[in-house]
Amino acid sequence: MKPLLIFSTLLILCSCNNNKSSDDSSYKKVYGAPKATVTTQPDNDKQTGPLAYGPNVPKLQDGDTVEVKIDVTHKQFTVKRDVSFGAWLFGDSLPGPVLRVKVGQTIKFSMTDRTNDTAMMKMSVGDHMLKPMPHSIDFHSAMVNPEDKYRTIYPGETIHFTWTANYPGVFMYHCGTPMVLLHMISGMVGMVIVEPADGYPGKVDKEFAIVQNEYYLTPQGATYIADTILALKRIPTYVAFNGKVAQYITRPIRVKAGERIRLYFLNVGPNLISSFHVIGTILDKVWLDGNPANELRGMQAALVGPAQGAVIEFVLPEKGEYTFVDHSFANATVGALGVFAAE
Amino acid sequence: MKPLLIFSTLLILCSCNNNKSSDDSSYKKVYGAPKATVTTQPDNDKQTGPLAYGPNVPKLQDGDTVEVKIDVTHKQFTVKRDVSFGAWLFGDSLPGPVLRVKVGQTIKFSMTDRTNDTAMMKMSVGDHMLKPMPHSIDFHSAMVNPEDKYRTIYPGETIHFTWTANYPGVFMYHCGTPMVLLHMISGMVGMVIVEPADGYPGKVDKEFAIVQNEYYLTPQGATYIADTILALKRIPTYVAFNGKVAQYITRPIRVKAGERIRLYFLNVGPNLISSFHVIGTILDKVWLDGNPANELRGMQAALVGPAQGAVIEFVLPEKGEYTFVDHSFANATVGALGVFAAE
Amino acid sequence: MKPLLIFSTLLILCSCNNNKSSDDSSYKKVYGAPKATVTTQPDNDKQTGPLAYGPNVPKLQDGDTVEVKIDVTHKQFTVKRDVSFGAWLFGDSLPGPVLRVKVGQTIKFSMTDRTNDTAMMKMSVGDHMLKPMPHSIDFHSAMVNPEDKYRTIYPGETIHFTWTANYPGVFMYHCGTPMVLLHMISGMVGMVIVEPADGYPGKVDKEFAIVQNEYYLTPQGATYIADTILALKRIPTYVAFNGKVAQYITRPIRVKAGERIRLYFLNVGPNLISSFHVIGTILDKVWLDGNPANELRGMQAALVGPAQGAVIEFVLPEKGEYTFVDHSFANATVGALGVFAAE
Repeated sequence: MKPLLIFSTLLILCSCNNNKSSDDSSYKKVYGAPKATVTTQPDNDKQTGPLAYGPNVPKLQDGDTVEVKIDVTHKQFTVKRDVSFGAWLFGDSLPGPVLRVKVGQTIKFSMTDRTNDTAMMKMSVGDHMLKPMPHSIDFHSAMVNPEDKYRTIYPGETIHFTWTANYPGVFMYHCGTPMVLLHMISGMVGMVIVEPADGYPGKVDKEFAIVQNEYYLTPQGATYIADTILALKRIPTYVAFNGKVAQYITRPIRVKAGERIRLYFLNVGPNLISSFHVIGTILDKVWLDGNPANELRGMQAALVGPAQGAVIEFVLPEKGEYTFVDHSFANATVGALGVFAAE
Repeated sequence: MKPLLIFSTLLILCSCNNNKSSDDSSYKKVYGAPKATVTTQPDNDKQTGPLAYGPNVPKLQDGDTVEVKIDVTHKQFTVKRDVSFGAWLFGDSLPGPVLRVKVGQTIKFSMTDRTNDTAMMKMSVGDHMLKPMPHSIDFHSAMVNPEDKYRTIYPGETIHFTWTANYPGVFMYHCGTPMVLLHMISGMVGMVIVEPADGYPGKVDKEFAIVQNEYYLTPQGATYIADTILALKRIPTYVAFNGKVAQYITRPIRVKAGERIRLYFLNVGPNLISSFHVIGTILDKVWLDGNPANELRGMQAALVGPAQGAVIEFVLPEKGEYTFVDHSFANATVGALGVFAAE
Repeated sequence: MKPLLIFSTLLILCSCNNNKSSDDSSYKKVYGAPKATVTTQPDNDKQTGPLAYGPNVPKLQDGDTVEVKIDVTHKQFTVKRDVSFGAWLFGDSLPGPVLRVKVGQTIKFSMTDRTNDTAMMKMSVGDHMLKPMPHSIDFHSAMVNPEDKYRTIYPGETIHFTWTANYPGVFMYHCGTPMVLLHMISGMVGMVIVEPADGYPGKVDKEFAIVQNEYYLTPQGATYIADTILALKRIPTYVAFNGKVAQYITRPIRVKAGERIRLYFLNVGPNLISSFHVIGTILDKVWLDGNPANELRGMQAALVGPAQGAVIEFVLPEKGEYTFVDHSFANATVGALGVFAAE
């Protein structure tokens, strides 16, 4: 019996040390999925699934299969007071809604290109960005043939495909229709949270989702248009958290001092790194791309490349207002800042 | 007795493998600190504390409490021959002095805004940058309410506050008074080294502190001024190690071949990543943000974001001159280079 | 006997957990090397060594010593249809040939500056870039005195020196002759793969080498010249994988669905980070700078700084075409993209 005892002790020890394997759950990876289908009949289905708009985080749904529908629309989007542009949107929002699933779940996804319905028919200067247009969706969280699943659909069409979550993380989704850079800076970006099969390790008190994106805008008449020439110069007009410049300065995110806070952070770029920092505290844990196997401790800033994510955990030590910024400070200066108000 | 022996062996094994917990010392984290105080009486106290000017590294002070005083001044600062600008300085230097403490120590900090004394009263073109001005200090190494401790003080005022070092690392301090980007590019930046409670693991022969910063300068009369418009364009006029362009080319840092060298490296940005490289060797260890839990091995370059630090250890293999650079080579080309002379 | 058994079990456990030490092979690090020699007699030796041109990867050579010869030439290089420039090349190629060795091997290296032979003697506009010129080679994989081994040689000269591979990784080599930035953007860049002494851990089905580089080109007459002023502005004209803009779009890299693919990836910059991403899959493993000790798991993108490398492993889940990009998307837009065609 003693050898057994020793052996089992060793096993426990091995498993407690081996945090690299936390994503190698008993769930077998699923490679690929059945062919996508595209239909042209009218689709009146509403948006559905474990979705929420940041900084809110959706709840997981139970079950092996999760149905998700997100549609595409065009509309004028206000970036900050007196600055709006003709935007292309997932889920009528910029960024699109946050989707949350877990490793092993299969997502039955559908998307309708509703730019027929929402496009402005009376065109004025700059409004050409709002006319109907083909689009697609590319999930960084999926392992599928992009030719098939991420194919471009046309206004009025609906695409249906499935994918299975193989790796935990904070992933980007975006439109992959050429010219991709234009579709991304026009607003077609969003976050998928994939939890490990048994949930993210450790308990936290509050969770928030924050997407960082760059705007490249040129004035056109009374409003603005997304400008790929500017994007190629890599000097953003604005940088925002969850789409609106400095929105959490005017309406801070409310938390409590001493709480453990977990951020699902995503930098959708399209171009620049983010050096994410919270003034007044230290980031206790940073999991690169949101995978607990990739743990950094005690960071003053999380370096997150364009099209990378992170899970970031920290405590605000006492009551007060804690500004968070991209400490690549030109980015903070043009809008990448907000406040956690700790009571 | 045998089970005990096995158990204790396992404990030792566990602790030797578990380098992730090296920052979880027996020191309990201290969240927050008593309210800061601001006084207006004349302050003649001299700079004090475990401070040194890079590339020198200060010695740790013993004791649970460490008194530190660093003041703010304005003066003309020479970046390279024939290039000077109206700078804003901590400790009369750019970067400010390196502070060194260890996890568990409480820092009793005070700072006087002496820009009344040092500002030029006879103004000429460009000298407006040298007039008295409000300032503040933000320690990335502290966990305190920034509204209180990092508050702005006015010329002649002295601020007093305390903070406790919770995490080991190489941290930035800087002025956090709006417009923050201007205060940073005007020179208000510096390094704090926080050692683990039991010191950094491993023995080294020599230690140096190197701060990388970007200059954004526009000619104004006979000299230059710091220019936020340029900083927003992210094309630095110069990039320097310890404030002076290419200073360690003319006066190399002297070491011995075969010695183990530890650099405390900090990239204060404000904007760009550094890809720090030493020509002729390989970086044996890189601890991201200076925390031994975040170890990379055998790196040709350390990727350090703006507002990030690193501990970097290496050996220079034989006698010779080893140039170190930011291998983001446009930065090296405008000044981010120096030499280690190994005898 | 039991204590012995327990002890040996613990040892095995220790070694299996301790992946940090995978580069600390039994091979003792070799610091420095005998003095380099430079000869002026005519050299007709051919290129030799474990070399290949990307995306192909050379085979390792057996033995403690490996002879390698790579020469320098000047010639007009075509970046994309209708865009060529006066390039400076290692091994008549841009990037230069991939060299593959393993930890513990000593490389007997020689290089002839053949720019006398290859330079265009009939000069026209822009051709001044093709005249004979001094050059050098700097291996990031070596630990030697750069003053000696990386010295500049003149047209017709041959340099001979040795170095020993101490660390596994994917390293850069480049010309280090001032002005270094110009030599790098003119094409003098390449990859060294150093395998661990016992080979990279894990089995893979296919291996490829990919070098990412930025072009900064200005039109001059009918062709282009490399332009350091543009390089200092950090807005590349083109970004390429293995030197040719979008070459793997027209001629995809052929693989099989379900295979395990290992990329040896190197970002030679000179300036920008790469956020390397493969559309339709997730990067199972990323070893920063190519050292298995620096493992990240389940990444949507590998953040690789200028002058950094990575080993990247992944599976393409089903038949289809998988575009790979630098997801710093302005870079993809100017050429940093290709296709893996999975059958």
